Amino acid sequence: AIQGELGAFSHEAARGAFGPQVAIVPRRTFEEMFEAVNNGDADVAVVPIENTLVGSIIKNYDLLVEHQLQIAAELVLRIVHNLIAKPGVALHDIKHVFSHPVALAQCERFLKANPGLQVEQAYDTAGSVKMVMEGDDRTAAGIAGVAAAEVYGAQIVVPGIESHAQNFTRFFVLTPPGRVKQVQLPSAGPGRKTSVVFRIANRPGGLYEALSAFASEGVDLTKIESRPIEGRPWEYSFYLDLVGAEDTPAVQRALASLAKGTESIRVLGSYATLTV
Amino acid sequence: AIQGELGAFSHEAARGAFGPQVAIVPRRTFEEMFEAVNNGDADVAVVPIENTLVGSIIKNYDLLVEHQLQIAAELVLRIVHNLIAKPGVALHDIKHVFSHPVALAQCERFLKANPGLQVEQAYDTAGSVKMVMEGDDRTAAGIAGVAAAEVYGAQIVVPGIESHAQNFTRFFVLTPPGRVKQVQLPSAGPGRKTSVVFRIANRPGGLYEALSAFASEGVDLTKIESRPIEGRPWEYSFYLDLVGAEDTPAVQRALASLAKGTESIRVLGSYATLTV
Repeated sequence: AIQGELGAFSHEAARGAFGPQVAIVPRRTFEEMFEAVNNGDADVAVVPIENTLVGSIIKNYDLLVEHQLQIAAELVLRIVHNLIAKPGVALHDIKHVFSHPVALAQCERFLKANPGLQVEQAYDTAGSVKMVMEGDDRTAAGIAGVAAAEVYGAQIVVPGIESHAQNFTRFFVLTPPGRVKQVQLPSAGPGRKTSVVFRIANRPGGLYEALSAFASEGVDLTKIESRPIEGRPWEYSFYLDLVGAEDTPAVQRALASLAKGTESIRVLGSYATLTV
Repeated sequence: AIQGELGAFSHEAARGAFGPQVAIVPRRTFEEMFEAVNNGDADVAVVPIENTLVGSIIKNYDLLVEHQLQIAAELVLRIVHNLIAKPGVALHDIKHVFSHPVALAQCERFLKANPGLQVEQAYDTAGSVKMVMEGDDRTAAGIAGVAAAEVYGAQIVVPGIESHAQNFTRFFVLTPPGRVKQVQLPSAGPGRKTSVVFRIANRPGGLYEALSAFASEGVDLTKIESRPIEGRPWEYSFYLDLVGAEDTPAVQRALASLAKGTESIRVLGSYATLTV
């Protein structure tokens, strides 16, 4: 299951992880994507969690906690935007460019260098290509990833028009706990990572004490995120990504030490990272 | 300067801090609100930074770093939503309810208990009241704070329709560095707070070491937030709110210690908290 249309960046990530024949279950919202796994319409969800330009996708952090799915793998995708139109259309034919506002913002340099292109907002990157292909207008183009061009039989007119090369999105592959072993991917990175979410009692130094559990075991943290707890003003759930598998002694000791000082703790998964 | 229409919650916060006669400079976007202070159209900006249900307003964290304004005060406002219509309109007259999607979501319980009310999205809470008052439709109502009813001469039909009482927004009062002393508010809370933003070199244990500067001085942290650094994948700027004035010895020692291990550090302000 992915959020968005066929050909979206989540589709590219899923294809990179599971191969070109993977069956995609597109869903309109992030909630519906989680639901598709819960009700068995899909085996896994491929969920964007963080982008190196935009930051954390906090809606998905909240959904991770609300649902009981586990992280089976982490995927890292380089975001490449392309100007995509009907087959045979050339750059000088194009007058209108459609895409999601974030994609348009990430192609600002190309769009400024081509002031003849009128920019129009669309609900989705891949959806803009779908719309261009369904219409009759040969002056219209979309901005999306390569998968969108392939899925809708469109043509890449100008590849790689993103302003920043350092544009990556991290995805989590989520699945029900009983299925994790079946969908785990072979480790391709420098080892496994583990993600946890916890709440600390609201007292001075609580966050520092929680983090000291990792420092004293030499366990490195790669990400910290906080989300408010409903009904408890100025208290937070903290999410940590740490380097190491859950079953290594140092990580086990750190998690046991963290558990002593926290109100609640849940391991969201221990997984390999795959660059797709 | 505030973002949004006259009568917005930012207007309520500004009134609570500076009195009912404060002159409000409304701006359409957060960027234009910062710009109004930079170009002298306004003395201060009243900037929402965090809500206890929605979380951090990350756009404003980014703008804080891009601009050179200082935090002169922190305001905490209880968010009370009201059903607001033209004078003389009763609840049973109302068929359409307009407001910002977040406000509508926060009044879900009231709206479910009144299924005869058809919900419609608007761009702004106060703007929905403005629109109702400018129109002729006596079956239309908006959802907004008390200030919106007052500003537009409307009537509160049902007060306090928010689902959660624990709904607060924190605002920063921002001003140019040279003006901080003029707009500082008397401390009304348990003492002053200080906010800093820093970058740490990308090495194992970096975040833990940075936080240890505060723990070893007994300085408590109330909030941590991270934002990605453009062009440096998986590296972050960290924002911390800590308890204590910048000029107290423990805070000074902690900041000096932090500065040693960080690539850059900036104190955003040291300020009193006012519940408005």
